[in-house]
Amino acid sequence: MGVVLSLEDGKRQLASIGPLMTLTKADMGRVNELILSKAGSDVELIPEVANHLVSSGGKRLRPMITLAAAKMFGYEGDSDVKLATSVEFMHTATLLHDDVVDESDLRRGRATARMIWGNQASVLVGDFLLGQAFRMMVEVGSLDALDVLSAAATIIAEGEVMQLAAAQNLETTEDEYLAVIRAKTAALFSAAAEVGPIIAGASKAERAALRSFGTNLGLAFQLVDDALDYGGSAQDLGKNTGDDFREGKVTLPVLLSYRRGTSEERAFWKNAIENGVTDDSELEKAIGLMTRYGAIGDTVQRASHFGEIARDALAPMGDTEQKSALIEVIDFCISRVN
Amino acid sequence: MGVVLSLEDGKRQLASIGPLMTLTKADMGRVNELILSKAGSDVELIPEVANHLVSSGGKRLRPMITLAAAKMFGYEGDSDVKLATSVEFMHTATLLHDDVVDESDLRRGRATARMIWGNQASVLVGDFLLGQAFRMMVEVGSLDALDVLSAAATIIAEGEVMQLAAAQNLETTEDEYLAVIRAKTAALFSAAAEVGPIIAGASKAERAALRSFGTNLGLAFQLVDDALDYGGSAQDLGKNTGDDFREGKVTLPVLLSYRRGTSEERAFWKNAIENGVTDDSELEKAIGLMTRYGAIGDTVQRASHFGEIARDALAPMGDTEQKSALIEVIDFCISRVN
Repeated sequence: MGVVLSLEDGKRQLASIGPLMTLTKADMGRVNELILSKAGSDVELIPEVANHLVSSGGKRLRPMITLAAAKMFGYEGDSDVKLATSVEFMHTATLLHDDVVDESDLRRGRATARMIWGNQASVLVGDFLLGQAFRMMVEVGSLDALDVLSAAATIIAEGEVMQLAAAQNLETTEDEYLAVIRAKTAALFSAAAEVGPIIAGASKAERAALRSFGTNLGLAFQLVDDALDYGGSAQDLGKNTGDDFREGKVTLPVLLSYRRGTSEERAFWKNAIENGVTDDSELEKAIGLMTRYGAIGDTVQRASHFGEIARDALAPMGDTEQKSALIEVIDFCISRVN
Repeated sequence: MGVVLSLEDGKRQLASIGPLMTLTKADMGRVNELILSKAGSDVELIPEVANHLVSSGGKRLRPMITLAAAKMFGYEGDSDVKLATSVEFMHTATLLHDDVVDESDLRRGRATARMIWGNQASVLVGDFLLGQAFRMMVEVGSLDALDVLSAAATIIAEGEVMQLAAAQNLETTEDEYLAVIRAKTAALFSAAAEVGPIIAGASKAERAALRSFGTNLGLAFQLVDDALDYGGSAQDLGKNTGDDFREGKVTLPVLLSYRRGTSEERAFWKNAIENGVTDDSELEKAIGLMTRYGAIGDTVQRASHFGEIARDALAPMGDTEQKSALIEVIDFCISRVN
């Protein structure tokens, strides 16, 4: 079930995070060392659980954004590495808590921590990593960076609760859904990008530009993720196709299909989302309806819209390797779907 | 099943937190307002869950300690109210996560949030409150206070994980058990007390004194709590007698009884703690063994020991109403058991 997209620019399909990885390679080495050292504890279970997640092969997109956003404004100290690590720990803590909330069995194709060590360890190790994240931010000593990151922590939790409340409600509007992902996903991308110019002592306008880039990249990233849940394989995705569907999560492809469907189809969605399905034929039917109504393609189009805003946010910034690499990340995120 | 204690000083039984409450009354009014405002959110579920806990009639001992510890050194600004609220939010977040980890049904005699709204809401609202706590600390802008409180957040989580790992292990030594409660309970009392002198600009020695007071009061508080679990009524305690026992938690009264018991009695403890019991006759037998070996009384004696250290920590401080009130809190904590 291929998703057909007409991209105006064929090159976008070749976009890669390679340039960002190359530019941040040395610093990411230091981030990885810091991750291992700060996930350490005499309490054995903590590094065990933390390393399980840390070694699970995520792309580490968020800390790379922080590093590039700092270097983009000429930052030369070592606080960028600490803040990048804080950002990754905040993300990891969120994943640990999310898996408990969603009762997920797999994450990036591997058993979740809660399946191996139980919900208890996932909750507590998440709390530990969040505590360590704040300690590193405090070490950096920038009250502005602390302000941005602590606000993000609150907003992320708020977004997760919103999602919990909106879960299984097919009457959720697209605007309401965007508010959820703006909080639960985009807020951390936004903070990850903004702390770069903050520690580099950049101007207000530069901070605002990177914040806007992060927010819109985060929205695009999440929407593409939502689309991928109905159109990739577990191997590509690191999660099972249809995970969101089986968990009864209402994401944009579902909301669009529901709104565009007949009353009979709506009844199908209501039953599937509210009562949960375990049957693969239901998933196939769902994907069939999404294809019929162009819901997956349109979700990616919405993602492209936010990608364009992210690109324009960086437009006035001086031309640097970092800027080019970050812009290529936008295209990479969107082209993941093909 | 009365616990007989010989206290050298009869007056201690009359000790009360009344003086501390009186001294902090006006500021606690502001703390309560701030709690309500910062637990607010457009996401309805958040204030609902938060208010359930906030209105559940805890004594708010920790924020009162912060307020008194600041005033003790002449602090006159309004950061003490913000930090006191942060401390209470950290405590509330811990309770929410603890209930999920312990699978508790009752807290202070009321249904826990997780019983009403589910584990998911408890995890996420806990995260929200922790985020709000950090935002208030950042508003205060004292990097020293941020350092102390963020370190406490990490240590508390570490202590909870230690307890998870040590749970149901009857070979846990008293030292190991103390390390757990030093982290999971005493660290927050310690931080609550230390941030007072920090924002008041007090000396290093004064900070150290209040930190030591907090740590040792916290240890005494937790040990008395452990004893009360085997010797109070749900009404006094706000929790069910025997909750720890039913959850298979090894606390000091259990560890002492186990160490002092016959091999037959040890087999009883192993079975009860490892397999869990629901039968009240098992709880009665446990309390009978504790009484035979003086395990509850000795747990309270250990608490008194830490209480004395807390008292001596404050000894060199100038005589103030706050100092007297804080010292009376030590005696109050210990006399709760009678």
